[in-house]
Amino acid sequence: MNEDTESVPHPTQRLNDTVHHRTRLGIMAVLREVDRAEFGHLRDTLDLTDGNLSRHIRTLEQAGYVEIHKGYHGRRPRTWLSLTDQGAQALTEEVAALKALVARLDDPPSA
Amino acid sequence: MNEDTESVPHPTQRLNDTVHHRTRLGIMAVLREVDRAEFGHLRDTLDLTDGNLSRHIRTLEQAGYVEIHKGYHGRRPRTWLSLTDQGAQALTEEVAALKALVARLDDPPSA
Repeated sequence: MNEDTESVPHPTQRLNDTVHHRTRLGIMAVLREVDRAEFGHLRDTLDLTDGNLSRHIRTLEQAGYVEIHKGYHGRRPRTWLSLTDQGAQALTEEVAALKALVARLDDPPSA
Repeated sequence: MNEDTESVPHPTQRLNDTVHHRTRLGIMAVLREVDRAEFGHLRDTLDLTDGNLSRHIRTLEQAGYVEIHKGYHGRRPRTWLSLTDQGAQALTEEVAALKALVARLDDPPSA
Protein backbone atom coordinates (compact mmCIF):
# COMPACT_ATOMS: atom_id res chain seq x y z
CA MET A 1 0.00 0.00 0.00
CA ASN A 2 1.81 3.17 -1.07
CA GLU A 3 1.79 6.45 0.82
CA ASP A 4 -1.12 8.04 -1.14
CA THR A 5 -3.64 5.29 -0.49
CA GLU A 6 -2.77 5.19 3.22
CA SER A 7 -3.52 8.92 3.79
CA VAL A 8 -6.86 8.81 1.90
CA PRO A 9 -9.53 7.19 4.10
CA HIS A 10 -10.55 3.76 2.84
CA PRO A 11 -13.90 3.99 0.94
CA THR A 12 -15.60 1.83 3.60
CA GLN A 13 -14.83 4.54 6.15
CA ARG A 14 -17.22 6.83 4.24
CA LEU A 15 -20.11 4.38 4.65
CA ASN A 16 -22.89 5.49 6.99
CA ASP A 17 -23.99 2.66 9.32
CA THR A 18 -27.57 3.93 9.44
CA VAL A 19 -27.85 3.73 5.65
CA HIS A 20 -25.43 0.85 5.03
CA HIS A 21 -27.31 -1.84 6.95
CA ARG A 22 -28.55 -4.31 4.32
CA THR A 23 -32.26 -3.90 5.08
CA ARG A 24 -32.15 -0.12 5.49
CA LEU A 25 -30.14 0.21 2.27
CA GLY A 26 -32.87 -1.80 0.54
CA ILE A 27 -35.63 0.37 2.01
CA MET A 28 -33.92 3.61 0.93
CA ALA A 29 -33.08 2.24 -2.52
CA VAL A 30 -36.70 1.23 -3.17
CA LEU A 31 -37.97 4.58 -1.84
CA ARG A 32 -35.68 6.43 -4.20
CA GLU A 33 -37.22 4.65 -7.17
CA VAL A 34 -40.73 5.88 -6.33
CA ASP A 35 -42.12 9.11 -4.79
CA ARG A 36 -43.47 7.07 -1.95
CA ALA A 37 -44.14 3.41 -1.28
CA GLU A 38 -46.85 1.71 0.70
CA PHE A 39 -45.68 -0.25 3.77
CA GLY A 40 -46.94 -3.59 2.44
CA HIS A 41 -45.26 -3.06 -0.91
CA LEU A 42 -41.89 -2.38 0.77
CA ARG A 43 -42.32 -5.40 3.04
CA ASP A 44 -43.04 -7.73 0.09
CA THR A 45 -40.42 -6.25 -2.28
CA LEU A 46 -37.71 -6.76 0.35
CA ASP A 47 -39.22 -10.00 1.75
CA LEU A 48 -39.36 -8.64 5.30
CA THR A 49 -41.70 -9.17 8.26
CA ASP A 50 -43.92 -6.30 9.47
CA GLY A 51 -41.91 -6.12 12.69
CA ASN A 52 -38.52 -6.06 10.99
CA LEU A 53 -39.60 -3.39 8.51
CA SER A 54 -41.16 -1.25 11.26
CA ARG A 55 -37.98 -1.44 13.34
CA HIS A 56 -35.76 -0.24 10.47
CA ILE A 57 -38.24 2.45 9.43
CA ARG A 58 -38.16 3.80 12.99
CA THR A 59 -34.34 3.98 12.81
CA LEU A 60 -34.48 5.79 9.45
CA GLU A 61 -37.20 8.17 10.67
CA GLN A 62 -35.21 9.03 13.81
CA ALA A 63 -32.21 9.76 11.57
CA GLY A 64 -34.39 12.11 9.52
CA TYR A 65 -34.04 10.01 6.36
CA VAL A 66 -37.60 8.74 5.97
CA GLU A 67 -41.02 10.33 6.39
CA ILE A 68 -44.13 8.36 7.41
CA HIS A 69 -47.52 9.25 5.92
CA LYS A 70 -50.70 7.77 7.44
CA GLY A 71 -53.94 7.62 5.43
CA TYR A 72 -56.71 5.37 4.14
CA HIS A 73 -57.18 3.22 1.10
CA GLY A 74 -60.98 3.10 1.02
CA ARG A 75 -61.82 2.33 4.64
CA ARG A 76 -58.56 0.56 5.36
CA PRO A 77 -55.79 2.45 7.18
CA ARG A 78 -52.59 2.61 5.15
CA THR A 79 -49.01 3.76 5.78
CA TRP A 80 -46.84 5.26 3.05
CA LEU A 81 -43.17 6.07 3.29
CA SER A 82 -40.95 8.50 1.43
CA LEU A 83 -37.33 9.60 1.49
CA THR A 84 -36.65 13.04 2.92
CA ASP A 85 -34.19 15.31 1.12
CA GLN A 86 -31.72 14.47 3.89
CA GLY A 87 -32.33 10.77 3.24
CA ALA A 88 -31.83 11.16 -0.49
CA GLN A 89 -28.55 12.98 0.18
CA ALA A 90 -27.37 10.28 2.61
CA LEU A 91 -28.17 7.59 0.04
CA THR A 92 -26.28 9.52 -2.66
CA GLU A 93 -23.22 9.65 -0.40
CA GLU A 94 -23.54 5.94 0.42
CA VAL A 95 -23.74 5.06 -3.28
CA ALA A 96 -20.71 7.26 -4.03
CA ALA A 97 -18.72 5.41 -1.36
CA LEU A 98 -19.88 2.02 -2.69
CA LYS A 99 -18.84 3.06 -6.22
CA ALA A 100 -15.40 4.10 -4.91
CA LEU A 101 -15.06 0.76 -3.11
CA VAL A 102 -16.09 -1.27 -6.17
CA ALA A 103 -13.78 0.77 -8.43
CA ARG A 104 -10.89 0.17 -6.03
CA LEU A 105 -11.59 -3.56 -5.92
CA ASP A 106 -11.76 -3.68 -9.71
CA ASP A 107 -8.51 -1.74 -10.02
CA PRO A 108 -6.54 -2.16 -6.77
CA PRO A 109 -3.89 0.46 -5.94
CA SER A 110 -0.35 -0.90 -6.38
CA ALA A 111 0.55 -2.63 -3.06
CA MET B 1 -42.75 -1.45 -9.89
CA ASN B 2 -43.70 -3.75 -12.76
CA GLU B 3 -44.16 -7.49 -12.46
CA ASP B 4 -40.58 -8.43 -13.49
CA THR B 5 -38.78 -6.36 -10.88
CA GLU B 6 -41.05 -7.65 -8.13
CA SER B 7 -40.33 -11.37 -8.78
CA VAL B 8 -36.54 -10.82 -8.99
CA PRO B 9 -35.12 -10.46 -5.45
CA HIS B 10 -34.00 -6.91 -4.71
CA PRO B 11 -30.16 -6.64 -5.00
CA THR B 12 -29.88 -5.90 -1.27
CA GLN B 13 -31.35 -9.33 -0.58
CA ARG B 14 -28.20 -10.85 -2.11
CA LEU B 15 -25.97 -9.05 0.39
CA ASN B 16 -24.30 -11.25 3.00
CA ASP B 17 -24.48 -9.71 6.49
CA THR B 18 -21.15 -11.24 7.52
CA VAL B 19 -19.39 -9.54 4.60
CA HIS B 20 -21.60 -6.46 4.27
CA HIS B 21 -20.90 -4.94 7.67
CA ARG B 22 -18.95 -1.74 7.01
CA THR B 23 -15.84 -2.76 8.97
CA ARG B 24 -15.75 -6.36 7.75
CA LEU B 25 -16.26 -5.20 4.17
CA GLY B 26 -13.24 -2.92 4.66
CA ILE B 27 -11.13 -5.73 6.11
CA MET B 28 -11.97 -8.08 3.23
CA ALA B 29 -11.45 -5.37 0.60
CA VAL B 30 -7.99 -4.51 1.95
CA LEU B 31 -7.07 -8.21 2.18
CA ARG B 32 -8.04 -8.75 -1.42
CA GLU B 33 -5.59 -6.07 -2.51
CA VAL B 34 -2.64 -7.89 -0.92
CA ASP B 35 -1.69 -11.55 -0.39
CA ARG B 36 -1.79 -10.95 3.32
CA ALA B 37 -1.79 -7.94 5.62
CA GLU B 38 -0.28 -7.41 9.01
CA PHE B 39 -2.76 -6.76 11.86
CA GLY B 40 -1.39 -3.30 12.61
CA HIS B 41 -1.49 -2.29 8.97
CA LEU B 42 -5.18 -3.28 8.72
CA ARG B 43 -5.97 -1.48 11.98
CA ASP B 44 -4.33 1.77 10.79
CA THR B 45 -5.63 1.60 7.19
CA LEU B 46 -9.21 1.26 8.45
CA ASP B 47 -8.71 3.50 11.50
CA LEU B 48 -9.88 0.83 13.94
CA THR B 49 -9.01 -0.09 17.52
CA ASP B 50 -7.21 -3.36 18.26
CA GLY B 51 -10.32 -4.66 20.01
CA ASN B 52 -12.71 -3.72 17.23
CA LEU B 53 -10.48 -5.26 14.55
CA SER B 54 -9.98 -8.46 16.59
CA ARG B 55 -13.74 -8.84 17.10
CA HIS B 56 -14.48 -8.57 13.36
CA ILE B 57 -11.58 -10.82 12.41
CA ARG B 58 -12.97 -13.49 14.77
CA THR B 59 -16.35 -13.23 13.00
CA LEU B 60 -14.71 -13.54 9.58
CA GLU B 61 -12.52 -16.44 10.71
CA GLN B 62 -15.52 -18.32 12.15
CA ALA B 63 -17.27 -17.83 8.80
CA GLY B 64 -14.24 -19.34 7.06
CA TYR B 65 -13.49 -16.12 5.16
CA VAL B 66 -10.19 -15.10 6.79
CA GLU B 67 -7.11 -17.04 7.89
CA ILE B 68 -4.86 -15.93 10.75
CA HIS B 69 -1.09 -16.45 10.54
CA LYS B 70 1.07 -16.00 13.67
CA GLY B 71 4.80 -15.34 13.38
CA TYR B 72 7.66 -13.02 14.34
CA HIS B 73 9.12 -9.90 12.89
CA GLY B 74 12.60 -10.08 14.39
CA ARG B 75 11.85 -10.92 18.00
CA ARG B 76 8.43 -9.31 18.03
CA PRO B 77 5.34 -11.52 17.63
CA ARG B 78 3.28 -10.56 14.63
CA THR B 79 -0.15 -11.53 13.23
CA TRP B 80 -0.91 -11.61 9.50
CA LEU B 81 -4.27 -12.11 7.91
CA SER B 82 -5.34 -13.37 4.51
CA LEU B 83 -8.55 -14.07 2.64
CA THR B 84 -9.45 -17.72 2.17
CA ASP B 85 -10.77 -18.86 -1.23
CA GLN B 86 -14.21 -18.99 0.39
CA GLY B 87 -13.72 -15.41 1.59
CA ALA B 88 -12.63 -14.22 -1.83
CA GLN B 89 -15.73 -15.85 -3.33
CA ALA B 90 -18.02 -14.26 -0.73
CA LEU B 91 -16.48 -10.85 -1.44
CA THR B 92 -16.93 -11.36 -5.19
CA GLU B 93 -20.64 -12.11 -4.62
CA GLU B 94 -21.01 -9.07 -2.33
CA VAL B 95 -19.39 -6.81 -4.95
CA ALA B 96 -21.66 -8.24 -7.67
CA ALA B 97 -24.73 -7.47 -5.53
CA LEU B 98 -23.42 -3.94 -4.79
CA LYS B 99 -22.86 -3.37 -8.53
CA ALA B 100 -26.43 -4.54 -9.26
CA LEU B 101 -27.76 -2.18 -6.58
CA VAL B 102 -25.76 0.80 -7.86
CA ALA B 103 -26.79 0.05 -11.46
CA ARG B 104 -30.42 -0.12 -10.41
CA LEU B 105 -30.18 3.18 -8.56
CA ASP B 106 -28.50 4.79 -11.57
CA ASP B 107 -31.18 3.41 -13.90
CA PRO B 108 -34.29 2.67 -11.84
CA PRO B 109 -36.80 0.18 -13.30
CA SER B 110 -39.96 1.93 -14.53
CA ALA B 111 -42.31 2.26 -11.50
